[in-house]
Amino acid sequence: MEIVSTAHAHGGIQGVYRHASSATSTAMTFSVFVPAHASGAKLPVLWYLSGLSCTHANVTEKGEYRRLCAELGIILVAPDTSPRGDQVPDDPDGAYDFGLGAGFYVDATTSPFTAHYRMWTYITDELPRLIADEFPADMGAQGIFGHSMGGHGALTAALGMPGRYRSVSAFAPIVAPGQVPWGKKALGGYLGPDEATWRAHDAVAMIEDGARVPDLLVDQGMADQFLAEQLKPELLSAACEAAGIPLTLRMQPGYDHSYYFVSTFMEDHLRWHAERLRG
Amino acid sequence: MEIVSTAHAHGGIQGVYRHASSATSTAMTFSVFVPAHASGAKLPVLWYLSGLSCTHANVTEKGEYRRLCAELGIILVAPDTSPRGDQVPDDPDGAYDFGLGAGFYVDATTSPFTAHYRMWTYITDELPRLIADEFPADMGAQGIFGHSMGGHGALTAALGMPGRYRSVSAFAPIVAPGQVPWGKKALGGYLGPDEATWRAHDAVAMIEDGARVPDLLVDQGMADQFLAEQLKPELLSAACEAAGIPLTLRMQPGYDHSYYFVSTFMEDHLRWHAERLRG
Repeated sequence: MEIVSTAHAHGGIQGVYRHASSATSTAMTFSVFVPAHASGAKLPVLWYLSGLSCTHANVTEKGEYRRLCAELGIILVAPDTSPRGDQVPDDPDGAYDFGLGAGFYVDATTSPFTAHYRMWTYITDELPRLIADEFPADMGAQGIFGHSMGGHGALTAALGMPGRYRSVSAFAPIVAPGQVPWGKKALGGYLGPDEATWRAHDAVAMIEDGARVPDLLVDQGMADQFLAEQLKPELLSAACEAAGIPLTLRMQPGYDHSYYFVSTFMEDHLRWHAERLRG
Repeated sequence: MEIVSTAHAHGGIQGVYRHASSATSTAMTFSVFVPAHASGAKLPVLWYLSGLSCTHANVTEKGEYRRLCAELGIILVAPDTSPRGDQVPDDPDGAYDFGLGAGFYVDATTSPFTAHYRMWTYITDELPRLIADEFPADMGAQGIFGHSMGGHGALTAALGMPGRYRSVSAFAPIVAPGQVPWGKKALGGYLGPDEATWRAHDAVAMIEDGARVPDLLVDQGMADQFLAEQLKPELLSAACEAAGIPLTLRMQPGYDHSYYFVSTFMEDHLRWHAERLRG
């Protein structure tokens, strides 16, 4: 693991790191904030998965999480959203919603994507092992959250790996990729046309198929331009109700899809996770 | 005034605006955060001046000021750092420390800069009138702060316009431009070789020449790469001590010159200003 940069922030260290990933067969960059802590202490780890077109940098610069992570004693890890590099195939039209910056947190099974687009393995297996090795991380106390496509990633990771994450939340998540344009394009592109294979990466379908989390916090801006066509929180609400999953869904009047929205409600999410990670 | 964008954030509105400036004879872009407030209420106004190479966007995205401005009921205005546009002369070598992004908050008197580089008039006269007209601003309760070159701008504005600002603070300011490479290049370039003309835009020289502020908060990172050569807070400390100006100078171990530093201490500065603006 190579240090790209480190800076003091809110009493801790905000770092950016790079490593050669065996999952994606590329270099991968991620950021980690480690609060000040007693020597030898291990801290809970909160995973933040980012949305379409983002890298680790968006939430690192705009997420406003460090003050609270420092107060609550939580490590925050922000991975990239796809493999990167000249050898990595992209959307044929260079669209923002597939390929580079749009890995959708799945392991691709189709050509030419399967060689590098293995974000599920990267996020749930390879990077956690690296974090455990390189940082003062209590891997028995992990939570996960994310924004938009990263909300999809957080929900599906928590539903797909029961017991791995003690807490899960999302900002404006894609809750049912199999039913919306972004998700149909991505899951079809990475997993192929058999929609049955998509269900293991679709939070609403996973819940319908029996997956469970203890509880769930979702914030959604009501002025979000993607709300009606791509996000459809009502589908998550119905699935959770049918499954008996306690969902706290907060529709926020006036808020859009941007980091102005994410940073506004970041504190509530961090406290939600802290209660479950440290409690 | 044209609205570039607005977004809900922390209960208020973060906007970006553009207008045709008569001071700079260019279009100028700036951001304003207006907290939620009672209809008809006027709120104190805090000016944030940015550093070399920045626009309004750096602090708007990375400054982490909205939560506290919302809590304290303060409008924050972030102007650009220079005129912009194809017609605006730049540093002949395209350097980051002169010309575009480096207006140094002075009215240039030299050719070819005098036509557009009139940031002193813009910041202290034209933009305040626009803010008073367009926003719910109590112009009798103004404060000013800034980072690096913007710290220089804040200090010189407060020292140069006694009674205008109720509060002043700075992050890693250039305190004595007449004595450091950045400042010598900029003041020489904009004001010409007669160093006597520089003293009205040099905080330490202004204090030596009798200018006063009631008190002053400065944070400075001790791992700041520009500390020894460009920033020299010890010169401000000596000038304030000789003049009897109460200076709170906090040397922060480990912190660099970045927005990780600025955002860490943003809350302390906003509370400093709030006490003086609302008290």
